[in-house]
Amino acid sequence: MRLALIGVGLIGGSFARALRAAGKVDVVIGFDSQPDALRRAIELGVIDQSAESAARAVEHADLAMIATPVGSMQGVLQAIAPHLAPAAIVTDVGSTKASVIEAARRELGSAFERFVPGHPIAGREHSGVEYSEAALFNDKLFICTPVGRTDMAAVRQVEALWRSVGCHTDHMTPEEHDTVFAAVSHLPHLLAFALVAQIAADPDAGRKFALAGAGFRDFTRIAASSPALWSDVCVANSDALGDELRQHRNLLAELQQAIDECDREALQSVFSRAGESLRALE
Amino acid sequence: MRLALIGVGLIGGSFARALRAAGKVDVVIGFDSQPDALRRAIELGVIDQSAESAARAVEHADLAMIATPVGSMQGVLQAIAPHLAPAAIVTDVGSTKASVIEAARRELGSAFERFVPGHPIAGREHSGVEYSEAALFNDKLFICTPVGRTDMAAVRQVEALWRSVGCHTDHMTPEEHDTVFAAVSHLPHLLAFALVAQIAADPDAGRKFALAGAGFRDFTRIAASSPALWSDVCVANSDALGDELRQHRNLLAELQQAIDECDREALQSVFSRAGESLRALE
Repeated sequence: MRLALIGVGLIGGSFARALRAAGKVDVVIGFDSQPDALRRAIELGVIDQSAESAARAVEHADLAMIATPVGSMQGVLQAIAPHLAPAAIVTDVGSTKASVIEAARRELGSAFERFVPGHPIAGREHSGVEYSEAALFNDKLFICTPVGRTDMAAVRQVEALWRSVGCHTDHMTPEEHDTVFAAVSHLPHLLAFALVAQIAADPDAGRKFALAGAGFRDFTRIAASSPALWSDVCVANSDALGDELRQHRNLLAELQQAIDECDREALQSVFSRAGESLRALE
Repeated sequence: MRLALIGVGLIGGSFARALRAAGKVDVVIGFDSQPDALRRAIELGVIDQSAESAARAVEHADLAMIATPVGSMQGVLQAIAPHLAPAAIVTDVGSTKASVIEAARRELGSAFERFVPGHPIAGREHSGVEYSEAALFNDKLFICTPVGRTDMAAVRQVEALWRSVGCHTDHMTPEEHDTVFAAVSHLPHLLAFALVAQIAADPDAGRKFALAGAGFRDFTRIAASSPALWSDVCVANSDALGDELRQHRNLLAELQQAIDECDREALQSVFSRAGESLRALE
């Protein structure tokens, strides 16, 4: 199998490494808009050859994996569409699905049927091909969000690859996916970025960070994620994320009133709702 | 040394275990408003004897350690004040300092001079004496917030005990302490509780929690902390926490506008401020 890897970062790089370790790929042709990343990917043996463009990378490829930030995917799809082999499958790993599917529908023409929208629930707070590892997807979930026109044979082929690198697989609609991940991934990232940015803007920031305990470091670990990638995600999923953030701000307004009025019972009631739901998961 | 331990939870229990392991304590007399906790503390060997009240626990004690939620400390101080031995030192481990010091000033009379307000920056998301461990304070920071009337010889004795169980020690004013920890501890706890409570209230909560990845679990780990303890902290530090929350809500209102307007640059600017400050810490 000949894989074109567009975007050689943490996720794309790990996918290539894992497929190679599973014996599922013969040649990996990589492209990245950052020449440094492409050079490191070659040095690290993550890709076999680098292409001078996304279009050149996909020529003769059996599978084109788009692993760029979601904001770049429409441009990539537009660039590769005329160069895809007739039977080539195109897939992605974007953290939002509806906007990527719309871009694919617009750009791919009849090849849209062989576009398999996907999202592996795996990652690290560090980005870049130097952090990629073959085991990243082991025992993780790969979610596929096919639409009516999606060729289910192509879906099965892509899912078989993810299973070969250790994933469980599941299906959701793009809208379900984007609503769920707005709540459990995109909003937490936004809040962690916001809290760290707030403290960073304080004249006493250095001491505040120095005095923070383990709870703070866990809470803000995801604020070390890529600002470019996550601002892309927020814009790509602005409807669902905007709704979740509005709900969150309403709840914080309630909590502000409880704090200002020293209403201990109101605070404990909200905190207990959280604690009970976490205990129910154990 | 005869230690009266009022409140036998995670922190108080770990303090008693650690002092015993360091050979710094002869007898530990415990009291807790929850009879079950007291019983378990005896069974686990964390305390030697249980007292029927806080007042009885402190009779003949050299050191009275108050390790209850901060909202209960005024009641404890009032109860023990008439029963303290003339040279006894009283100290605490509350996560807020100004309100506890005010309570001690009101309740302890002349013994206020030997009240050493303290806060070890250590903890776990689980509470209760069954989670206590002698090593909890190893390589952690103990912050002391003495005021003008505080007897510095008493401060040195308490600090020596914390150093004997592995802590570094530092001094801050109560106001500095409460401002710093509103930002790096109390607000993150509030936000984690709020996010989990928000998702828990959703009809699709079960699936949302099931699909959450490692980043969500890290972010919300502190939402498993005790709701009673943290609603106490929020009320005890309502001024500083209220200010931090107001700032946070202003920043979230900015981010909401950026999301609603798909203003990628505005989002990336805030996210990058966070990322830069975290990298500066590495």
